Amino acid sequence: MRKLEEFFQFLDKDKISQSESDLYRHSRDESFHPWIEPDFVYFPENTEDVIKVLKLACEYEVPVTPFGAGSGLEGQAIPINKGVSLNFDRLNKVVEFSPEDLMITVEPGITRLQLNEYVNKHGLFFPIDPGADATIGGMVATNASGTTAVRYGSMRDQVLDLEVVLANGSVLHTGSKAKKSSSGYHLNGIFTGSEGTLGVITKITLKLHGIPEQTVAARCTFETPLECAEAAQAVLMSGIQVMRMEFVDAESIHQVNKYGNYTFPEAHSLFFEFAGTTNAVEEEAHVVEELMRDFGSKHWERASNSKERAELWKARHELAYAYRHMKGKASTGADVCVPISKLPELVDLGRTLLEDSGLMGGVFGHVGDGNFHTIVMFDPTDEGEKEKAEFTNSQLALKAIEVGGTCTGEHGVGLGKMKYQLTEHGDAVQYMKSIKSLFDPKGIMNPGKMFY
Amino acid sequence: MRKLEEFFQFLDKDKISQSESDLYRHSRDESFHPWIEPDFVYFPENTEDVIKVLKLACEYEVPVTPFGAGSGLEGQAIPINKGVSLNFDRLNKVVEFSPEDLMITVEPGITRLQLNEYVNKHGLFFPIDPGADATIGGMVATNASGTTAVRYGSMRDQVLDLEVVLANGSVLHTGSKAKKSSSGYHLNGIFTGSEGTLGVITKITLKLHGIPEQTVAARCTFETPLECAEAAQAVLMSGIQVMRMEFVDAESIHQVNKYGNYTFPEAHSLFFEFAGTTNAVEEEAHVVEELMRDFGSKHWERASNSKERAELWKARHELAYAYRHMKGKASTGADVCVPISKLPELVDLGRTLLEDSGLMGGVFGHVGDGNFHTIVMFDPTDEGEKEKAEFTNSQLALKAIEVGGTCTGEHGVGLGKMKYQLTEHGDAVQYMKSIKSLFDPKGIMNPGKMFY
Ligand SMILES: Cc1cc2nc3c(=O)[nH]c(=O)nc-3n(C[C@H](O)[C@H](O)[C@H](O)COP(=O)(O)OP(=O)(O)OC[C@H]3O[C@@H](n4cnc5c(N)ncnc54)[C@H](O)[C@@H]3O)c2cc1C
Ligand SMILES: Cc1cc2nc3c(=O)[nH]c(=O)nc-3n(C[C@H](O)[C@H](O)[C@H](O)COP(=O)(O)OP(=O)(O)OC[C@H]3O[C@@H](n4cnc5c(N)ncnc54)[C@H](O)[C@@H]3O)c2cc1C
Repeated sequence: MRKLEEFFQFLDKDKISQSESDLYRHSRDESFHPWIEPDFVYFPENTEDVIKVLKLACEYEVPVTPFGAGSGLEGQAIPINKGVSLNFDRLNKVVEFSPEDLMITVEPGITRLQLNEYVNKHGLFFPIDPGADATIGGMVATNASGTTAVRYGSMRDQVLDLEVVLANGSVLHTGSKAKKSSSGYHLNGIFTGSEGTLGVITKITLKLHGIPEQTVAARCTFETPLECAEAAQAVLMSGIQVMRMEFVDAESIHQVNKYGNYTFPEAHSLFFEFAGTTNAVEEEAHVVEELMRDFGSKHWERASNSKERAELWKARHELAYAYRHMKGKASTGADVCVPISKLPELVDLGRTLLEDSGLMGGVFGHVGDGNFHTIVMFDPTDEGEKEKAEFTNSQLALKAIEVGGTCTGEHGVGLGKMKYQLTEHGDAVQYMKSIKSLFDPKGIMNPGKMFY
Repeated sequence: MRKLEEFFQFLDKDKISQSESDLYRHSRDESFHPWIEPDFVYFPENTEDVIKVLKLACEYEVPVTPFGAGSGLEGQAIPINKGVSLNFDRLNKVVEFSPEDLMITVEPGITRLQLNEYVNKHGLFFPIDPGADATIGGMVATNASGTTAVRYGSMRDQVLDLEVVLANGSVLHTGSKAKKSSSGYHLNGIFTGSEGTLGVITKITLKLHGIPEQTVAARCTFETPLECAEAAQAVLMSGIQVMRMEFVDAESIHQVNKYGNYTFPEAHSLFFEFAGTTNAVEEEAHVVEELMRDFGSKHWERASNSKERAELWKARHELAYAYRHMKGKASTGADVCVPISKLPELVDLGRTLLEDSGLMGGVFGHVGDGNFHTIVMFDPTDEGEKEKAEFTNSQLALKAIEVGGTCTGEHGVGLGKMKYQLTEHGDAVQYMKSIKSLFDPKGIMNPGKMFY
């Protein structure tokens, strides 16, 4: 602790907090992993502040863990070796906005809703939408995606350039403002998804997209999860570029109905959104409706205005909270992503594993990418339940890897998916660790995450 | 040379060539850089062969330079330190094709036309189309793109997984068959665009895309290059997803007319292609036609069937060859990519630099990405001309970097763009070099390229 006191004298007092509430807030994310408080929280206001704290941390060998909105699901932001938690609440401004380039540069603390509020009035939007109002820094760091990835890809596809401060305090740019480049090795891709283990992201240049002229939403139901997955695969093969295509199983709709007192049809469902020019959207919605009928769907419902659309999609939007509000329960879940042809088999396995476990839970997700989740509720004080929940995760992750997919399509590795890294990446893991050592030789950046 | 003879005894004789024609073919690419012959050419037939030759090369410290179709424009495939040239003519098969996953795994020697021939009959296509019939391995290694990048991005956006053999003979996979992943550090991105300096790519898993139902082509002309660039910018801001949008200056159309005895209007021109469902395409072509009229365009011409479309686009397609067939001349050129708002200024600078140089040349390119080229013809035996040509390149590259862009949008670094790496990437270059040392500690992979 003497170390920390020495360390403190070089930092602005009003940027440091050791208050109970701040230490508590930075001890956890939205995962079930045990809470660990940092020694203190630091609130940088500019890149210089980040450089300063990293130089000191490097000298004193104090761990540094960046913290966004704390909405991560794999324990990424938990400072398991204590040290400094870096909070970006004050580093959240728009640095440069060029609507004519469909491009914006922001600081990491801005959230995705704040960003959209800023750009929407210019007819532009930023499509990546994890279920929580995450920070853009956290979203880059986990390579987040969401319901629009089927059309726009994930964060890695949106990042043009990052300003990063490395463990030793030096500052790099990982890309440029060009839409494409064949110059040098592509560092954007390595830093996107690095979960705070390679450096601190202090500026982010992102692509923006034009808000489509017209949007239509629709929902339909099927007898089994397998049928839903097969129907989703057929939509992809049709070549139609849906804006969103989500699967929700009957159990999850049941939970949403209970939670919100709704009466949505409690059946395995696909949710759609089509967006584009008016004629194109009508054409697409029509073709998909026919296709879904051919695949045996029931209850095709559609909505055009934004109020109706929100109503139609409610069962998808409120799903996570319907489960997570349950008192005394913790949740965990899989986040596998597989080639589309394997999706029916995997979704089916997910539902079967849940049933075999005897635990409450659902299967849902971004089936257009071959990415889906389970959510499994368990009593965190009951080791047996926790083990059963973990078993459903590991079976799905291992199966996904076996069929050529990944253990995590979007949530990231953190603490929860470390155990699958070697199985998924094989000998590449040793090179990933060497890359870590290259950028952070003393291992002060978010230690204990991603790789053993 | 004793070294090489020792080395040889471990390799299959029928996979080695030292014939005059093979040594000549592997001494050069399509750039003006001096030709240097390898000591011998090796024709691997499978991954094992590549492992074998790399292990030997590593032990004997012999340079290894992969060679695709030799269509590179920056000298990347020239074995400037001699040693082995690796040719993939025999490593060119389809390994696995999953039309239902819109995915294919191929060996590196297959060319883009061969790949499309294979998948087109299944209603699928691979969109990336550099002007030459390059190999897929070469295209990954240079992060190539072309006229469809405005819609599909570049090679890096298509690569799901690579099998690579490192300098020491070990084999890695850089990704998986999942459409997206947040697992581990993203090695796909580093190896795509690494120009044979990090390892040999032996298998490539790519995304495929559905062939759109309908395609319409169009062409229109403007008074100045500046007007063309401004009109292109307006199309992008309209949110319409064109399939292709190319700029060709009047001088280049003049050269094409001379070369092919054509009578295309010799004016600064934009070339378009729209593709999608029938109604959507009609709507898009109509909106863009109106928009171009608003921007003062003349001669809007359109074509729907494939014969007419090819005719309409001829001046774009034959452009490079119209210049390059000139006897006794060498060519060089810029490949800058800048934020769209800077495009008018840069295109204008390009045309002015050409005129000031007194050399023959054109400005053209993929303006939808902010990427364009100059082609400058010079007498390679005349140092003064060469210097003038090089001056136009360097002025454009430095200006592009200054406005936030890149010195190379798609051709890559090779020998030609090494001198801009430090200006463009700053301190990041030292980390790029460390990444090189990590994967290739003895520096045997394509030495003398990319970084000094
Ligand atoms: C209800 C709910 C639904 C969700 N749905 C989705 C979904 O659909 N898709 C999806 O991808 N995720 C989803 N998530 C997970 C979560 O929202 C994402 O992982 C998100 O990207 C985390 O962002 P954050 O700002 O909360 O980061 P945090 O959780 O605070 O941190 C995540 C990681 O990023 C690092 N980090 C944060 N800022 C920086 C920085 N400036 N520099 C370097 N590293 C940094 C941290 O160190 C940590 O490793 C969901 C979460 C919840 C609770
Ligand atoms: C007329 C013309 C038009 C062109 N238009 C375009 C264009 O529009 N867009 C564009 O991007 N490019 C264009 N090019 C440039 C060229 O076609 C591309 O750079 C192409 O990607 C090179 O592929 P290649 O197979 O010819 O590779 P080569 O030129 O043989 O090699 C290129 C690099 O790739 C490496 N390499 C090759 N195979 C492997 C492997 N298996 N593993 C590791 N490294 C490997 C080589 O070592 C070398 O560094 C054009 C060229 C010409 C002549």
